[in-house]
Amino acid sequence: MTANAMLSDLSAIGRTTRGGYTRLAWDDATMQLREWFAGQASATGLEVVEDGNGNQLAWLGDGSADGRKALLLGSHLDSVRGGGPLDGPLGVAASLSALNRLLASGWKPTRPIVIANFSDEEGGRFGVACLGSRLATGASPADATLALRDDDGTTLAEVMTARGRDPRSAGPAEWLDRIACFVELHVEQGRWLEPHGAAVGVASAIWPHGRYRLDFCGQGNHAGATAMTDRRDPMLTYAATVLAARELAAGGDRATFGRVQVAPGSTNSIPSRVTAWLDARAEAEPALEALVGAIVQRAETAARTDGTSVTLTAESTSGAVDFDLPLRHRLGALLDAPVLATGAGHDAGVLAARLPTAMLFVRNPSGISHAPEEFAEPIDIDAGVDALVRVIEELG
Amino acid sequence: MTANAMLSDLSAIGRTTRGGYTRLAWDDATMQLREWFAGQASATGLEVVEDGNGNQLAWLGDGSADGRKALLLGSHLDSVRGGGPLDGPLGVAASLSALNRLLASGWKPTRPIVIANFSDEEGGRFGVACLGSRLATGASPADATLALRDDDGTTLAEVMTARGRDPRSAGPAEWLDRIACFVELHVEQGRWLEPHGAAVGVASAIWPHGRYRLDFCGQGNHAGATAMTDRRDPMLTYAATVLAARELAAGGDRATFGRVQVAPGSTNSIPSRVTAWLDARAEAEPALEALVGAIVQRAETAARTDGTSVTLTAESTSGAVDFDLPLRHRLGALLDAPVLATGAGHDAGVLAARLPTAMLFVRNPSGISHAPEEFAEPIDIDAGVDALVRVIEELG
Repeated sequence: MTANAMLSDLSAIGRTTRGGYTRLAWDDATMQLREWFAGQASATGLEVVEDGNGNQLAWLGDGSADGRKALLLGSHLDSVRGGGPLDGPLGVAASLSALNRLLASGWKPTRPIVIANFSDEEGGRFGVACLGSRLATGASPADATLALRDDDGTTLAEVMTARGRDPRSAGPAEWLDRIACFVELHVEQGRWLEPHGAAVGVASAIWPHGRYRLDFCGQGNHAGATAMTDRRDPMLTYAATVLAARELAAGGDRATFGRVQVAPGSTNSIPSRVTAWLDARAEAEPALEALVGAIVQRAETAARTDGTSVTLTAESTSGAVDFDLPLRHRLGALLDAPVLATGAGHDAGVLAARLPTAMLFVRNPSGISHAPEEFAEPIDIDAGVDALVRVIEELG
Repeated sequence: MTANAMLSDLSAIGRTTRGGYTRLAWDDATMQLREWFAGQASATGLEVVEDGNGNQLAWLGDGSADGRKALLLGSHLDSVRGGGPLDGPLGVAASLSALNRLLASGWKPTRPIVIANFSDEEGGRFGVACLGSRLATGASPADATLALRDDDGTTLAEVMTARGRDPRSAGPAEWLDRIACFVELHVEQGRWLEPHGAAVGVASAIWPHGRYRLDFCGQGNHAGATAMTDRRDPMLTYAATVLAARELAAGGDRATFGRVQVAPGSTNSIPSRVTAWLDARAEAEPALEALVGAIVQRAETAARTDGTSVTLTAESTSGAVDFDLPLRHRLGALLDAPVLATGAGHDAGVLAARLPTAMLFVRNPSGISHAPEEFAEPIDIDAGVDALVRVIEELG
């Protein structure tokens, strides 16, 4: 089955009324996607196992006979709320389709091949991205991660238990010791390949990235009866911080407020608390630190004016990732593909600390991602699969 | 039972972990409060009936013998999310307690006395304040009101049906024809009585008031991969509008953003839409219109800069209310109480279009309301009950 056909197969799962997708870790949609993955992988002749962190791994051989380490492919099937169809099902579907085509042609691998469906890459439910790969590599400790809560106050441990998983099995995964290298294919997020006239590119690096919770606290009060001058309104401090972040994220840095909660959240009440999440990225770590520091400083200045307070909590941070240089050069030469950096995080960025890792991007004509309009031309998706076929022949 | 003791009785119902109260129309807490009200009123010898709009009315006599019209007292028992204990249970408890005391002393009314528990005064669930009194007076049409939806998408009609009420009975209420005048006692919202050294005051007017929904629309996208200059981020437009509203609400006007929803609401996504609710009030209607017009103009200017759009929908508006001048003068003289205007809306403001209506306020030392810290000294609550006793003797 082609990757385009597989994506069509998935087009009804977790679809929102706005035409996008909400597929959060362990929700009904991602459980359906797990079953679909297991079915497709089995049909390709792979043996599907799930590690203690919810990552599904479909193995062609396991290296037990000769101890050869495996080529890892794949991506993730979860999405942000209201996301697009391709981030990350494209990488999973393209990997399955490419391997399928090679096996149908009679090709024989020289090492095991594994296709992964990593759990909770987006962090849309528990606030920390790449949970599955972070747990497997030990980048995030199991105890603290299992205690993360979703918006309903349910912990990851409780959610996994409700889905029949034993959270005591979460943590560093032995299967990683059996992997030689990882290649993740992904739809481009941003619009770099389009003006460069290329359907497929190779990643050079991932920018450092942090997610920070800002708690703005003031004094709840009556919206009609409280004079403007008597207020300590944290919404004002939040608004000033949003505009400061936009102003400070110049020269290529990125700062976004995409999530906010207001308490008590009544139209006729001055808020007592505004909690907002800052997503910040920059090309290098010192620049990211400087950006976040400057935003906090501006928030604190606004808080003094408003009679409010602000505290910053780093909920997840990821250092810069430079993908393995020999592997990147080898794939760039093999595919004659241009090389680009990305501001987006990926499981490949987590695994890069452990293994030689590379990423391929498929052209996104509008650059839009994490939104229903995310799109790639079917012919470019085919080109991505063709590229993966050559990568598997080269490395597998 | 004293009003203070009654308020103690209610102190566990709908209490939040932050020490405030969330008692929204037709929720479990307000259903419990309805039962409490019916029990207290029956114990005082009143006959409790509920109109088709969910307003509970406890009658002492009904005027059927001599056609005399009734004195209406009371307030409401619902709250905003995370509100205080007194807005509006103080008015209901003080009315019950005052009538109780008079009847125990052998006093005989010359006309029927009614104590009301108005339904959904705060509008915390369906977004429109004073729903019970608006439906009863016909200020809001029944069909459109019954179609209002709460945050779960459930209509008022569905909610009433689930509570065993027939929504077809909603609409103008005949009992209003049997009312001579209405006196509502309420905790002060704002801090005017405290510096004036008075425990109880009489209301002169309620400011005009509007609740407006602002929909800021942009282009959802990836928070890491989208250059700041390529964004159409509606959060920026919202933030600029919050700060513009604060700046424009000078000279006594009030503008508040206390509720906001973000779609898709992911940390790592630029929002596609921010929906926010503006609560705006001013001393007179032209000033309110000018304020809202100026805020929208600033929002539109920001939207042009940000590549976004903004639309304004008035969800509820209330004109200025001047309370009945003879009644106000009569109560002011009777109680030797100072007269003050308020920015807060009340059922008394809705009924004032139909009946001679007055309000008494009980001192609030901090002025805080719609928040857990809302408070009145027990001795001031007693003074409020004493004032109501004299009002009932005078008017009843």
